Amino acid sequence: MNIAALLTSAGINIGLCILLLSLYSILRKQPTNYDVYFARRLAQVQGERHDPFCFERFVPSASWLVKAWETTEDELLGDAGLDALVFIRIIVFSIRIFAIATVVGIFMVLPLNYYGQEMQHKQIPSESLGVFTISNVKEGSEWFSAHVVALYVITGSACMLLYFEYKSLTSMRLAHITQSPTNPSHFAVLVRSIPWSPKESYSDSVRNYFTKYYAATYLSHQMVHLCGTVRKLVSSATKIYKVIISTSIEQGSKPILRCGLCGTTTSSFKILSSEESTKPGNELKSIESGSRENECSAAFVFFRNRYSAYIASKVLQSSNPMLWVTDLAPEPHDVYWSNLCIPYRQLWFRRIATLIATVVFMFVFLGPVAFVQGLTEMDHLTKMFPFIRGLLKRPYINRVVTGYLPSVVLLLFLYTVPPVMMLLAELEGSISRSGRKKSACTKVLYFTIWNVFFVNVLSGTYLKQLDSLFVVKDIPRTLGQAVPASASFFMTYVFTSGWTSLAVEMMQPLVLIYNNFLRYILQKDPPVSSAMSFPYHTELPRVLLFGLIGFCCAVLAPLILPFLVIYFSIAFLVYKNQFINVYVTKYDTGGQFWPIAHNATIFSLVLAQIIAMGVFGLKQSTAALGCTMPLLICTVLFNEYCRQRFFPVFNNTAAEVLMEMDWQDEQSGRLQEIHQKLQSAYCQFTLVSDDFCKAGHSVTDETAESVQDPHSIVVHLE
Amino acid sequence: MNIAALLTSAGINIGLCILLLSLYSILRKQPTNYDVYFARRLAQVQGERHDPFCFERFVPSASWLVKAWETTEDELLGDAGLDALVFIRIIVFSIRIFAIATVVGIFMVLPLNYYGQEMQHKQIPSESLGVFTISNVKEGSEWFSAHVVALYVITGSACMLLYFEYKSLTSMRLAHITQSPTNPSHFAVLVRSIPWSPKESYSDSVRNYFTKYYAATYLSHQMVHLCGTVRKLVSSATKIYKVIISTSIEQGSKPILRCGLCGTTTSSFKILSSEESTKPGNELKSIESGSRENECSAAFVFFRNRYSAYIASKVLQSSNPMLWVTDLAPEPHDVYWSNLCIPYRQLWFRRIATLIATVVFMFVFLGPVAFVQGLTEMDHLTKMFPFIRGLLKRPYINRVVTGYLPSVVLLLFLYTVPPVMMLLAELEGSISRSGRKKSACTKVLYFTIWNVFFVNVLSGTYLKQLDSLFVVKDIPRTLGQAVPASASFFMTYVFTSGWTSLAVEMMQPLVLIYNNFLRYILQKDPPVSSAMSFPYHTELPRVLLFGLIGFCCAVLAPLILPFLVIYFSIAFLVYKNQFINVYVTKYDTGGQFWPIAHNATIFSLVLAQIIAMGVFGLKQSTAALGCTMPLLICTVLFNEYCRQRFFPVFNNTAAEVLMEMDWQDEQSGRLQEIHQKLQSAYCQFTLVSDDFCKAGHSVTDETAESVQDPHSIVVHLE
Repeated sequence: MNIAALLTSAGINIGLCILLLSLYSILRKQPTNYDVYFARRLAQVQGERHDPFCFERFVPSASWLVKAWETTEDELLGDAGLDALVFIRIIVFSIRIFAIATVVGIFMVLPLNYYGQEMQHKQIPSESLGVFTISNVKEGSEWFSAHVVALYVITGSACMLLYFEYKSLTSMRLAHITQSPTNPSHFAVLVRSIPWSPKESYSDSVRNYFTKYYAATYLSHQMVHLCGTVRKLVSSATKIYKVIISTSIEQGSKPILRCGLCGTTTSSFKILSSEESTKPGNELKSIESGSRENECSAAFVFFRNRYSAYIASKVLQSSNPMLWVTDLAPEPHDVYWSNLCIPYRQLWFRRIATLIATVVFMFVFLGPVAFVQGLTEMDHLTKMFPFIRGLLKRPYINRVVTGYLPSVVLLLFLYTVPPVMMLLAELEGSISRSGRKKSACTKVLYFTIWNVFFVNVLSGTYLKQLDSLFVVKDIPRTLGQAVPASASFFMTYVFTSGWTSLAVEMMQPLVLIYNNFLRYILQKDPPVSSAMSFPYHTELPRVLLFGLIGFCCAVLAPLILPFLVIYFSIAFLVYKNQFINVYVTKYDTGGQFWPIAHNATIFSLVLAQIIAMGVFGLKQSTAALGCTMPLLICTVLFNEYCRQRFFPVFNNTAAEVLMEMDWQDEQSGRLQEIHQKLQSAYCQFTLVSDDFCKAGHSVTDETAESVQDPHSIVVHLE
Repeated sequence: MNIAALLTSAGINIGLCILLLSLYSILRKQPTNYDVYFARRLAQVQGERHDPFCFERFVPSASWLVKAWETTEDELLGDAGLDALVFIRIIVFSIRIFAIATVVGIFMVLPLNYYGQEMQHKQIPSESLGVFTISNVKEGSEWFSAHVVALYVITGSACMLLYFEYKSLTSMRLAHITQSPTNPSHFAVLVRSIPWSPKESYSDSVRNYFTKYYAATYLSHQMVHLCGTVRKLVSSATKIYKVIISTSIEQGSKPILRCGLCGTTTSSFKILSSEESTKPGNELKSIESGSRENECSAAFVFFRNRYSAYIASKVLQSSNPMLWVTDLAPEPHDVYWSNLCIPYRQLWFRRIATLIATVVFMFVFLGPVAFVQGLTEMDHLTKMFPFIRGLLKRPYINRVVTGYLPSVVLLLFLYTVPPVMMLLAELEGSISRSGRKKSACTKVLYFTIWNVFFVNVLSGTYLKQLDSLFVVKDIPRTLGQAVPASASFFMTYVFTSGWTSLAVEMMQPLVLIYNNFLRYILQKDPPVSSAMSFPYHTELPRVLLFGLIGFCCAVLAPLILPFLVIYFSIAFLVYKNQFINVYVTKYDTGGQFWPIAHNATIFSLVLAQIIAMGVFGLKQSTAALGCTMPLLICTVLFNEYCRQRFFPVFNNTAAEVLMEMDWQDEQSGRLQEIHQKLQSAYCQFTLVSDDFCKAGHSVTDETAESVQDPHSIVVHLE
């Protein structure tokens, strides 16, 4: 590939992007597409659609760009949460570091690469891209010192920027915890693996355990129920409820009903006296047994203050570590209910199984890749499908099948990755949606780095070269050989997969087509409130992959850097726009994606250094090789320092912070109100009728005495 | 090597062992050696040495054997602590599993190996050892299924035994925690990285912080002081003390002096009134500044109950994770004072540095090994030291230098390993002696496995074969080739290094020679109370290494197994005797060596399976290879299960256990007494005169009010 071809490719892709973005700027103004492009805003403000027909609607405009540009970080934080801000900060970090890298690369490294060999240069447009890479520098040349300096400058700046980002994000996370409106998850602990006892129900076990060991701070609890069977319970409970209502109305007193699923104790119900409750005995017994069977060995336990809840979640409760396992509860919207019922003793096994499945999937994916590469060879195809021999004789179809089909097939295969990883993350047994997404994000990241970066670097003969990746000491050499050679591939990858994917992200073609298909073909209204939450598990790995490519090529083939800066700049605007208009924030991890990005960046830096050392080794420049060694060590030490200094804050909350929040609540007298809200915060079955849901669940106040009464319906239904 | 040679070697070593042990049974009866062989008992019962001269003293006897055999586990637990019991249990586990392995190996595997090839067998005594190993079985033979079955039986029994050991040791650890007499470490937390403030001293910071955040449970604290400079402080404090005494005696009132190093507030001192304390102002000021400078940013903080201390130690205190770092305090005798003053921010760096140093040391050790192997070649020697050419011409000296010297040099090199690792563990910054020993134990274990097992397996051309260890997929093949070949070496290793080392351990030659040198040559009395604590960091790795050798050879060369059973049986008696008579238990980790042993055993099992798979691969028995795969996976899963089920108990204490202990103390009314004892539990400077040490340190009771008085000497000296 020469410069002209590169620029042509860049031009085509720029044109495509501009076309798509213009199309977007028109489509977004069509009221029928509002639920695609303003899903978030519609979710906030229901109804009120203006539909004026005017010419302006069909003129491309850049207003969305201006709007995205003008949105400040504070607005974004307020609108879309800390995770969104972290994502944008990752992009900003990338813009900064690659702007620095571009300056260093273009003005220091590129000329050296270009004049590295004493050779007759052609005119620049027809120059091969190879002469701009480090491969063009003579063996043992002293010019490699410039490459080492560039590596030092880039790594140093990256570490400095990372440090300040980590520091500011840490304080933002602290602010997010302290300044956010009262979060019920701060007061709640998820208890799993409640021991089975033949004498008492799980609910009784929980109450007895926590009133024994956490008497001063235990407030109440709420059992988790089996998902499938609870419907039956709900229906029969409703039946009983009606029976009781009718019975009690006859006798002139109102009953109390506690569904144990959610809701507060409503004041309109009074405690049912025991002689009354004995009347509908048969139905109650069936529910009693049903209720016990339907309870999972998991419960949310609420505490009187944050600090107690935090402590209960961090401490080993029982001398059998597989019993009474406590975790900080996720936010109510974040709870992944169906995973809560997984027996805790399965979890370690599930974790290992999904780990193995992920690794297997990563390597099995080489199969389709090899198959697709086989497609490009006609003979294989005609042997496999003899009937298409006639078709393939036509040159146009031939070109499509061998030239276009493979990449489409590969792309389709790649589109299966995030759902598969999401499924694996779900099987892992994460208790929260955000945890599942975080886990999927990590898995997709590993997958992407392996299957896009490494496999492409070693492409062509990579199935043979894969072996050499297992020879530890040969890795730098192999990569040093392969990476500069695949620089041109990565450049086109930045255009096609990078730029265009951003335009596609803006267009949301799938949702657009689906909605219009519903509206015009099936003549149905598209579903309301279909606003999705941001797919961190597909977007973050992509952004980090481009970072990895950038760091690895920065010194070896700096020509890629300006294109990357363009990519990140567009990404900055596009994702900001999407956060403001399209995606809703249903739950927030409080910036826990940052450590993933930090670690990926450090990995990229270390990999870049190892590859550079491989190149220096191949080019027999031992001085450069030796000088890179300390940089590698310093990078690893820097990472370790950050892990010590900042990472614990992303995993834990400091005791003093929680205590101060508790004191503030106590002083302001809001504690009672918070406790009240807690009771209805976690609602497992949102389809349950409100009537039913508003019935209370056990509270350790005076009303809880009725719980002790074996005849009371309270016990049966909890 | 043939059977006859093997038996000769075994015979010689058995003879040597019997000789040494008989010598031991005589030497131990000599009163002059009591402080070598009964150091522990002497430490318990001071004085009272009977010295009757009788003939019996010079007759070897087996009474010590009987005594060791009769000591029950409970007696051992009571006398030498849980760690000693764990050590003995590790040996018992080894005896059991290798007894099973011996039965399987000798009656199932050995005949198959022997008749594996259709060959003319010689008479057994002159048979090469090779025919007893798996190498003798034909390629692709179906007999390998027996080896697979043996592997399954051995692994299965090992896992079952490990499981029951882990289970019983877990409950023993719990009993150790709950039933041991009141342990001050349960109430204490070590706080490090106290933030520096120009306004107040570290001591004030600690008091303010803990009275703010742990008002209900904070009892008192005790600063840690710099070791070198504290001597000066002590001397000047003593001076001031005298000044105050004289001043106050003049004025008729007794002062209170708090040294802040250790000790309780004695009732004989009264609080110094402020107008009196202003008198010796100059001296006080100098001490005030000295005291602040001498304080480390570390302190022991005492709590009112165990649960609070435990929580304070487990929770992230500050939103800066590098400040107010809390750990559970070690037992008073276990504290490694000089490490407490290491600034906390150095620790992560020290950990990495010692890790690197350990790895480097492990590989650099190959240097001496290569040098020693070079010694065996005469030419090298004479080139290096031309002047010994004449000496070496004499055949006797020649034989000693080339045949004996190398192994002596190697042995001397090996003797340097435990101290070096101990030094590295110390530099790592462990806060307790037991932690240091545990860390050293792990390091020595890695070192031993690498430098004794792997390097010997690959010996001869190993420096070339080392490369192949870094080719991941070739490892099983390489090991499969090398391990059966080195079986005979390991057998002799069991005799020489195993059996004889036990006899040497009994004899304690170094201490014996040193003591007798002092007594008869220098005419001095040997130091009293020189009783050592058990060197787990040298003995445990040795025992585990023999386990590793046993598992790896069990199926490949089962002839080694009976010798190993003999080794472990002697070890059982010898170490029991040593625990009863020689070593004192100054501190106890509460069985934390067991997880190390468990992990090492699992590693041995997995390694044995990998090696077996390598052999099956080499012998082209894919069926056997495939059948071993599930075993490997199951072993890893078993380990993971144990890590989930039991390991947390060795790292943490369950909240319910601690709370119940607290309640018992409260009910029995011993809490006040315990709080009193706490004040004097941790004494940094034992050389400080008792007078000085008995002065109190800050207590949050009514006497603590004086602390608030800026004129009081209390503040200055704390």
